[in-house]
Amino acid sequence: MQLSVRGVRLGVAQAGIKQADRDDLVLIELAPGSTSVGLFTQNAFRAAPVQLAQQHLTDTAGKARYWLINTGNANAGTGLAGYETAEKTCAAVAEIQDCHGIEVLPFSTGVIGELLSAEPVINALPHACADLSENRWQRASEAILTTDTHAKLASRVISVSGKEVTLTGMAKGAGMIRPDMATMLAFVATDAEISSAGLDRLFRQAVSASFNRITVDGDTSTNDAAMFAATGCSGIAIEAEGGEAIAAFTEALESLCLELAQAIIRDGEGATKFVEVQVEGGVDADECDAVAYTIAHSPLVKTALFASDPNWGRLLAAIGRAGLKNLCVDDVSLYLNDVLIAVNGARAPDYTEAQGQRAMAPPELTIRVDLKRGASSSRVWTTDFSYEYVRINAEYRT
Amino acid sequence: MQLSVRGVRLGVAQAGIKQADRDDLVLIELAPGSTSVGLFTQNAFRAAPVQLAQQHLTDTAGKARYWLINTGNANAGTGLAGYETAEKTCAAVAEIQDCHGIEVLPFSTGVIGELLSAEPVINALPHACADLSENRWQRASEAILTTDTHAKLASRVISVSGKEVTLTGMAKGAGMIRPDMATMLAFVATDAEISSAGLDRLFRQAVSASFNRITVDGDTSTNDAAMFAATGCSGIAIEAEGGEAIAAFTEALESLCLELAQAIIRDGEGATKFVEVQVEGGVDADECDAVAYTIAHSPLVKTALFASDPNWGRLLAAIGRAGLKNLCVDDVSLYLNDVLIAVNGARAPDYTEAQGQRAMAPPELTIRVDLKRGASSSRVWTTDFSYEYVRINAEYRT
Repeated sequence: MQLSVRGVRLGVAQAGIKQADRDDLVLIELAPGSTSVGLFTQNAFRAAPVQLAQQHLTDTAGKARYWLINTGNANAGTGLAGYETAEKTCAAVAEIQDCHGIEVLPFSTGVIGELLSAEPVINALPHACADLSENRWQRASEAILTTDTHAKLASRVISVSGKEVTLTGMAKGAGMIRPDMATMLAFVATDAEISSAGLDRLFRQAVSASFNRITVDGDTSTNDAAMFAATGCSGIAIEAEGGEAIAAFTEALESLCLELAQAIIRDGEGATKFVEVQVEGGVDADECDAVAYTIAHSPLVKTALFASDPNWGRLLAAIGRAGLKNLCVDDVSLYLNDVLIAVNGARAPDYTEAQGQRAMAPPELTIRVDLKRGASSSRVWTTDFSYEYVRINAEYRT
Repeated sequence: MQLSVRGVRLGVAQAGIKQADRDDLVLIELAPGSTSVGLFTQNAFRAAPVQLAQQHLTDTAGKARYWLINTGNANAGTGLAGYETAEKTCAAVAEIQDCHGIEVLPFSTGVIGELLSAEPVINALPHACADLSENRWQRASEAILTTDTHAKLASRVISVSGKEVTLTGMAKGAGMIRPDMATMLAFVATDAEISSAGLDRLFRQAVSASFNRITVDGDTSTNDAAMFAATGCSGIAIEAEGGEAIAAFTEALESLCLELAQAIIRDGEGATKFVEVQVEGGVDADECDAVAYTIAHSPLVKTALFASDPNWGRLLAAIGRAGLKNLCVDDVSLYLNDVLIAVNGARAPDYTEAQGQRAMAPPELTIRVDLKRGASSSRVWTTDFSYEYVRINAEYRT
């Protein structure tokens, strides 16, 4: 369900960037006084719009007025020309909406390495501006998609001092998903009022437990960006409301981000499985992550998941090559859902292949590893590797 | 071409471990006085035979007399029972051939996580022993295969002091290939005489430049082992012959290992491409390796290779997420074979899509990255990701 956020208007247009007759341009307007924070890809090759968005966010101390998003072309690997294109589109928004170019943050997604032409975007901008409305979240969330098969949109409402505070967010992403901060594009807004520092802290925390813990193929995109804006239009200043309100707001933000992040995994390219990898009993979070991601990225584990084959030998092999120092394999326990399948470096005495097959059959399952050498744990969400994944990515540019 | 090695006899038998009517057991006999060295998987889950082979190699100070290899079952993830099975089969060889159990080194390959029964192996051993001959390399190299589509066998002959010295080796492996020492199983022998220390040094060097530089899917096996034996039966003591002989021998060993390693990649599961990834201009070998392996393991690069699609944006994205500190992307140059496709973080000015497609079309190609920030370089060999890879690994246990 989409819930509009007071102080946030969205406009959608068809710029014909990659194909005609589809929405591919979204302009998001934030009320004056709104505060934005963003987290961006850690890939050394950051796309031109990512570089410019970061720059503009810094230049305005988070007081951006517009987020401009196009799909169909990532404007990545495009050098100086790509940067200039991004600047031109920001300037065009500024001219129409009467603000400064640095108050516009650009975002692009789509094919990498092809020049994005500014003209189609600029020509479509008046239509997007004329379309601005608080009730465009649904259509906007569809307009930002690439290989996604459905829109990812989520809302939360909390009640503070008798007033409603709303949070709504949308995300896109299905491939090149191994966020090293946030995955792909995510845009979240609230009508609460929060300080820039508070916004940044809460969003980092929410992203690190959601968008940063999903992986489809281990490939970190050049264009990842996750944005969060607070308009203050609800009249509620969260931090001034005290601990209970902050806790409710934090919980709402985190569960919203997790819902969007998991929606990306459920819609992973060619995905037939939604898999949670839980690693517990580690010495620290890093080694839990190392095991979780080694499992989540193993092509052999992923093809076994596709086949619904409880091939736990491949899971043990992945755990064993995760690079943990002095791992005592006899201590490791491995579960599919609640079924103990391996212990002491071997098949569990009571385990039967039928149990494993039963656990693997449904479209959702949990792989749980207990390292039994510490108190840390971590969770990662991932998908399987199917024929369809190969097809989508072999045919992507044709 | 197979060339027998004086002092090495091989016997093949059908034990019916996984399927009937196929050779699945190989016994390699080394003449008394032979010296063996081995390199084993770095996976924390080392299979029972790997553990036992290492133990026996230590116990005999490299003076093993037999290498016993079975396919169809990796005897991995089998705990204490698996270890006992491996011990029993060694004892059975010792009894028939009148030697000590610790002089027998066991190797297994095949499915992980299923108990290997000792009986079929022990029952087939008399046939393998009766079959022992210097002329069994070809048949033995076929008997050790799993998902491989053809045997991997190579020989070299060098002339030293008017005598011939022969090196012959065989290998198997097509999936779960990211050797962290050597990949899968490789057995190399020579009739030269070399000290144990010299053998170890030369073999480590050869393996690090061959088996340790190939990857199909990034999955390091639990059973990897590469073995090298010197029987001395040629009457040539390489080290006593001096620098020129040592150099010729080293070159022969290294080119033989490289031929076998590349044969594994050419036969990679579902592989339609043989790809050399060259990274040069790095600060050190580690960062060159990081870039090379990130490219070689990227599912998006691998599916583009399958599609013969010069999707260099995915290559830049892979380079950018390889974790290099302070990488200046404007310095990076990217080539397909000799075609410069990207420079200054963008498409090369003279590059055309037609050039890229021409470079990608053949079954063999080179991806070359120049980081332009140092003098180090590295090379890695890999394959693409095809429908067939998914099919093979989804159906492996059925």
